[in-house]
Amino acid sequence: MNYPAWTAHPAVTLRAGAGFRLDDVDAGATPGFLGDKTAGKRELHARRDRLGDLQERLFAESRAGEAEDGVLLVLQAMDTAGKGGIIRHVVGGVDPQGVELAAFKAPTPEERAHDFLWRIEKRLPEPGFIGVFDRSHYEDVLIGRVHELAGADEIERRYDAIVDFERRVTASGIRLIKVMLHISPAEQKKRLMERLERPDKHWKYNPGDVDERMLWPEYMKAYQIAIERTSTEDAPWYVVPADHKWYARLAVQELLITALEDIDPQWPTADFDVEAEKQRLAAS
Amino acid sequence: MNYPAWTAHPAVTLRAGAGFRLDDVDAGATPGFLGDKTAGKRELHARRDRLGDLQERLFAESRAGEAEDGVLLVLQAMDTAGKGGIIRHVVGGVDPQGVELAAFKAPTPEERAHDFLWRIEKRLPEPGFIGVFDRSHYEDVLIGRVHELAGADEIERRYDAIVDFERRVTASGIRLIKVMLHISPAEQKKRLMERLERPDKHWKYNPGDVDERMLWPEYMKAYQIAIERTSTEDAPWYVVPADHKWYARLAVQELLITALEDIDPQWPTADFDVEAEKQRLAAS
Repeated sequence: MNYPAWTAHPAVTLRAGAGFRLDDVDAGATPGFLGDKTAGKRELHARRDRLGDLQERLFAESRAGEAEDGVLLVLQAMDTAGKGGIIRHVVGGVDPQGVELAAFKAPTPEERAHDFLWRIEKRLPEPGFIGVFDRSHYEDVLIGRVHELAGADEIERRYDAIVDFERRVTASGIRLIKVMLHISPAEQKKRLMERLERPDKHWKYNPGDVDERMLWPEYMKAYQIAIERTSTEDAPWYVVPADHKWYARLAVQELLITALEDIDPQWPTADFDVEAEKQRLAAS
Repeated sequence: MNYPAWTAHPAVTLRAGAGFRLDDVDAGATPGFLGDKTAGKRELHARRDRLGDLQERLFAESRAGEAEDGVLLVLQAMDTAGKGGIIRHVVGGVDPQGVELAAFKAPTPEERAHDFLWRIEKRLPEPGFIGVFDRSHYEDVLIGRVHELAGADEIERRYDAIVDFERRVTASGIRLIKVMLHISPAEQKKRLMERLERPDKHWKYNPGDVDERMLWPEYMKAYQIAIERTSTEDAPWYVVPADHKWYARLAVQELLITALEDIDPQWPTADFDVEAEKQRLAAS
């Protein structure tokens, strides 16, 4: 593998390992990437074919019943951090037939009547697919913690339950990529203000966004704890600086490519007699 | 609306109306389009923004609870006719967050235990979304008829059931676009042969494809009857010549744009005090 555009690969530099401190992450940085916005956009476009090729191989392999691998990208972030842009510009570069997208909103009464992982389990990607979670089970230890939607004991229980759950997920063959898109409060203010200033963006604005914004330190604490408790060898967190949208997209694209390269999917070999089929087809 | 690239709009020319004869459709034609392949590809790219803009407005409107409209594109075709390419190159140009894709394979035992529309109903798109059916309930009157998977009475019953079902679907606000991608047997032979000649395409080939190919006249008859019986004012069939992939993609893109223009979605107006929110945000 060759990453001429990078001095250090995002799978290494952005990984939240032992001793990780969210406070130390500069949301405005572009760690490891050698170029500017123009170069970043060019690179995103250039790497699209690589991602698409790997995805198609993965899909082919699973269709031939030769693999049980899949990928699951979990996206978590404060409002306006750019989850939608990742889905549109990174995931959108992949054949839609190979993508399973799940957006988790506030749980329904039915979902609330079950354990918090019940609705998550149902949306795990099948082998051969790239699953994308727009928000996830982490909401239950983020907004859940900040707004005390559950008792302290229950929140504690959930961290361990998540680790157990994700161990089972990765053991089943799913490469789990957990991404926190990390923006600064100043950048968020700018983006929310833009939504207020443009009538065609009003629908994306909710007065509750400002209420949540005022709880920024509490959210950062909840992210810090969640990352500490659930960033494991097989299911690590990546904290992606996201004040520069182009950088975040590029970094997540590389994380996806790396996960697929780890699977290393191969074109399945034919389980039929190719020459005989050519003759049969020619005669048809 | 202005369609400078077209002499006649595909929503008009490709529509299967009274007296429709599948035999009369030339799969190699490019009806109504003024240009060649190069112009067609350019047009496809040029119209992508229009489709994306309409999709975003539709999504916004439904999120604001102001509309119950949606779109459902049903794709039916003989093997290799290009359903996948439509999904990749037309639907793939739309924000994945606004698309709900359902691929219907051979029914599972659970699905078979229910009426044939049971699994279809569950995958209808929500308001605000563009649903895409890769195969559909029409399999139950196509392969179902050709292979006599159900008795003649049951097949007869299904045409009426489909018309009733689709009447309910369109009444709920879903614009239904039913597309048959129509290729010639000669073009199919070429495409299947290519799959056999390229090891990276072997996974797309199935010896059963040739068996089905040998039933071409029976399938065409089943399509003719299905179209006759179910092409209605509100849920018409469009038979899209598909020997030229670029033409089929362009035509389906225009059909989608037309359906969205019929909905004419508007940016929702803010249900909050914009100036007050600006002040609240500035102070946060």
